[in-house]
Amino acid sequence: MAVPETRTTPAPLSFETHPSRYRHWKLQFDGPIATLSMDVQEDAGLSPDYRLKLNSYDLGVDIELADAIQRLRFEHPEVRAVVLTSLKERIFCAGANIFMLRGSSHSWKVNFCKFTNETRLAMEDASQHSGMKFLAALNGICAGGGYELALACDEIVLVDDSNSAVSLPETPLLAVLPGTGGLTRVVDKRRVRRDLADFFGTIAEGIKGKRAVEWRLVDATYPLSKFKESVAARVRALAEKSDRPGGPGIQLNPLNPRETADQWEYSSVTVTFDRPKRTATIVVRAPEGPVEDTPEAILAAADQFWPLRVFRELDDAVLRLRVNEPEVGTLVLRAEGDPAFVLQADEVLVAHADHWLVREVRHFIKRALKRVDLTARSFFAFIEPGNAFAGTLFELALAADRSYMLDDPDRPSSIQLSAMNAGPYPMSNGLTRLQTRFYGDPQKVDELLAHDGPFDPQEALDAGLVTFAPDEIDWDDEVRLAVEGRASLSPDALTGMEANLRFVGPETMETKIFGRLTAWQNWIFQRPNAVGPKGALTSYGTSERAEFDFGRT
Amino acid sequence: MAVPETRTTPAPLSFETHPSRYRHWKLQFDGPIATLSMDVQEDAGLSPDYRLKLNSYDLGVDIELADAIQRLRFEHPEVRAVVLTSLKERIFCAGANIFMLRGSSHSWKVNFCKFTNETRLAMEDASQHSGMKFLAALNGICAGGGYELALACDEIVLVDDSNSAVSLPETPLLAVLPGTGGLTRVVDKRRVRRDLADFFGTIAEGIKGKRAVEWRLVDATYPLSKFKESVAARVRALAEKSDRPGGPGIQLNPLNPRETADQWEYSSVTVTFDRPKRTATIVVRAPEGPVEDTPEAILAAADQFWPLRVFRELDDAVLRLRVNEPEVGTLVLRAEGDPAFVLQADEVLVAHADHWLVREVRHFIKRALKRVDLTARSFFAFIEPGNAFAGTLFELALAADRSYMLDDPDRPSSIQLSAMNAGPYPMSNGLTRLQTRFYGDPQKVDELLAHDGPFDPQEALDAGLVTFAPDEIDWDDEVRLAVEGRASLSPDALTGMEANLRFVGPETMETKIFGRLTAWQNWIFQRPNAVGPKGALTSYGTSERAEFDFGRT
Repeated sequence: MAVPETRTTPAPLSFETHPSRYRHWKLQFDGPIATLSMDVQEDAGLSPDYRLKLNSYDLGVDIELADAIQRLRFEHPEVRAVVLTSLKERIFCAGANIFMLRGSSHSWKVNFCKFTNETRLAMEDASQHSGMKFLAALNGICAGGGYELALACDEIVLVDDSNSAVSLPETPLLAVLPGTGGLTRVVDKRRVRRDLADFFGTIAEGIKGKRAVEWRLVDATYPLSKFKESVAARVRALAEKSDRPGGPGIQLNPLNPRETADQWEYSSVTVTFDRPKRTATIVVRAPEGPVEDTPEAILAAADQFWPLRVFRELDDAVLRLRVNEPEVGTLVLRAEGDPAFVLQADEVLVAHADHWLVREVRHFIKRALKRVDLTARSFFAFIEPGNAFAGTLFELALAADRSYMLDDPDRPSSIQLSAMNAGPYPMSNGLTRLQTRFYGDPQKVDELLAHDGPFDPQEALDAGLVTFAPDEIDWDDEVRLAVEGRASLSPDALTGMEANLRFVGPETMETKIFGRLTAWQNWIFQRPNAVGPKGALTSYGTSERAEFDFGRT
Repeated sequence: MAVPETRTTPAPLSFETHPSRYRHWKLQFDGPIATLSMDVQEDAGLSPDYRLKLNSYDLGVDIELADAIQRLRFEHPEVRAVVLTSLKERIFCAGANIFMLRGSSHSWKVNFCKFTNETRLAMEDASQHSGMKFLAALNGICAGGGYELALACDEIVLVDDSNSAVSLPETPLLAVLPGTGGLTRVVDKRRVRRDLADFFGTIAEGIKGKRAVEWRLVDATYPLSKFKESVAARVRALAEKSDRPGGPGIQLNPLNPRETADQWEYSSVTVTFDRPKRTATIVVRAPEGPVEDTPEAILAAADQFWPLRVFRELDDAVLRLRVNEPEVGTLVLRAEGDPAFVLQADEVLVAHADHWLVREVRHFIKRALKRVDLTARSFFAFIEPGNAFAGTLFELALAADRSYMLDDPDRPSSIQLSAMNAGPYPMSNGLTRLQTRFYGDPQKVDELLAHDGPFDPQEALDAGLVTFAPDEIDWDDEVRLAVEGRASLSPDALTGMEANLRFVGPETMETKIFGRLTAWQNWIFQRPNAVGPKGALTSYGTSERAEFDFGRT
């Protein structure tokens, strides 16, 4: 039997931080090279129930990492390569803290893994799309989540000191999976042969030295005496592959939403809760006038440039909703304001796509939208007169599980596409949301993108751009019943259903991590052999030995 | 909390049957058209604990279906199209029996879904590769697994009688997923728009009539008065697309393994159990002389043609192991006999690839090997002097999670590839096992296939064709420790690990069904909201209402 779920969640949690407040990481700069060093403070975990020994981590450690990666992209365009290493002697990182995992509820474990996965994918996104390369300099033991962090880097080098090894000991020690992309990246990214990966995944002590290189687990090993200089040489070579522009960055200032009992109010995003109905409405507001339209003005606007501001706010709201509001299962998306200004902003995003800051903004919006796709909540878009569902904001309607558009001849309403719906925001499956939506009718994507001007409700319905278009008589009942009906269903079945229906078509390493790997890990996180009273995770670090039910499923 | 697992498995179960013994299906022939009609006998379920009302099914019903599909391929090469329908008035099929699911252990549910998934994929395989087309003639309600069965067909037609609908009511009624490929096939095969699929997947009553056609859920609807003739016309048109040869088929006779306490003995396959160690050895034997090498002789040999015989036996053994021996977690694969005869058999399979029976044999071996890949047990291949791991039989070593080859200069041993390793047996991911193995080194596949003659142990190791090649001093300890070590690990973590490492690279609809969809369903099959004391599956058909924990995970 599974252990009863506890809710030891340290809530409400904030995802905002700043290098000046980091407890667990040091960020240092040397021209185009940044060094991000892990130095986890044992007693500074999110909960006093565990100590973060040996550079093991909890969500608080990973929130700082995510913040650092994000700031490197926006605040430090001069950084071309990042060394990821540790300040602890002979220890790189021991992985996710096991006592934290043991004491966490099922949903906390799942959300923890989701966020850490998103952070590692953000590192790969930075490398692929911003020319910010990562070198994992493994100065000591590198186990489990520590090795998974290294796997997210472009290169991995390991000190050769007859002691330091890379390992994925989750299966032999804890009866769970390396669930932060480890299994997928070993075979799909590093392309370790599957039988070698099988062996590697079953031995707690890991692999070191020459064998680690031969098996492709790391790129090189160096003796301690040559480690520093070798890392320095390699990271310089990596930096040379980068196309980052240099020059001053912009500051990412705190978002500081105003929080009341039933509302989170950001400058361009408002989340309003109806907790008894287990629902919330997320309103995203269009800019109130034209956005800055020259690189100089955009740089000057900095984090107040509307496309960046609104998606930073939305991203923060989604993260908070995930961990702080687990019972709010249905999220209604609304876009308000003048769509003309959204479309003007899109024109700016297109015109200056090559400017480094606009590039960063576009990729950030892409990641924020992916975070919506990967959020285990139902999203319904409600499109009414006065809506601003156009271009980039229409991606939210496309990300929704369903959309309802009011068809009231007395109060006209419309939606509109822009060039920003044509490619810049691919989903995890590599397709745009329009391509995903019209997977059965691919030529329709180009037809709709060629459509000049807005779609009225009937046109939008006929085009398949919205799910339903009730008239003014039916509207109130239909949308109310939709939300109430959704909220009455099993949240687990909905999570599984949405995870299957949202990602049609091709799979990528990213969807494999969130589909195959994560789904199996979530299954294992429920299994008595891991989390039951005699399970391996439960027994770890106690005097009890795990006892397994050896029936194979 | 999850309901404690029961083991109500009706074991030992046999997967062998014959049309003369079918309880639930009628198979009729009319020239190139076969009609397979579901007529489930309520009181003939595998267990007396439930009644199979409304053409609902359990594993016993599906074993007959799988048998029928298989026999149509081998025994009826004249059949070009199959109508799948029901003999019950106004009912096509109500899906998997809910009371069976409720009373089943977790592992039984998972194995049940795996087998039904394999059977539906076998239907699609028959359509794609043997020109045997399927038409689902839905003469009445078609719910859940009933609709998933229809989804596996090439075409779906629905009677339009203001009552009959297609539906996937699993999520709203039972808090589980349509797990027999339903969610995947709706969006990936039928390419129903994801928002429409979302709506469809949340309403118990389903969709009927014109809307079912517009949404692509079915291909056509016909009023009852025109249903029969329309079905007849459509199936004739489907049959015309077929390239099946006609002519007499071959009989598939019973396998009749001799079973003793510790052994299952088939003509060319022996399974020997060491149950205290939770392991079994599967020995596959090479032919004892050259196999028949002309179409006439192969037809005369019929089901005794070695390649067909040995893989029918292996397939049966794997199926029985899955359900009847859940604690036997580690399977050692050995191939014995003269590899020259295996290679000669492979030459025959290549030379007569275009003959219908050889084509069927090749595709059957492909499916049997996929069944191995999808079996949640660890496979280790042990390769010693006297082994027959060559060509087709070497696919078993490639399917294994690891392989060990004895390197003893005094007792030479070798392995060998053939043209049958180059394409005819793709895995579910669409790659051959060699391509999967050398995903990180693709040009090596052609190099190895071009290698003339056998590989000795050192060559095999250097080529990466085996995992380890211990010498005669280490061999006994190393293979013993490998098996013992494997058997000591959590079976759940191994299942998850293997499911991730085995399927590197691209994903297909098939791997999406077994990866993403099945993994999520297995998770849900553990969740209290489905199977807990107040879960929806537990409460179904009782006076209790399901109560959910509405926390989203």
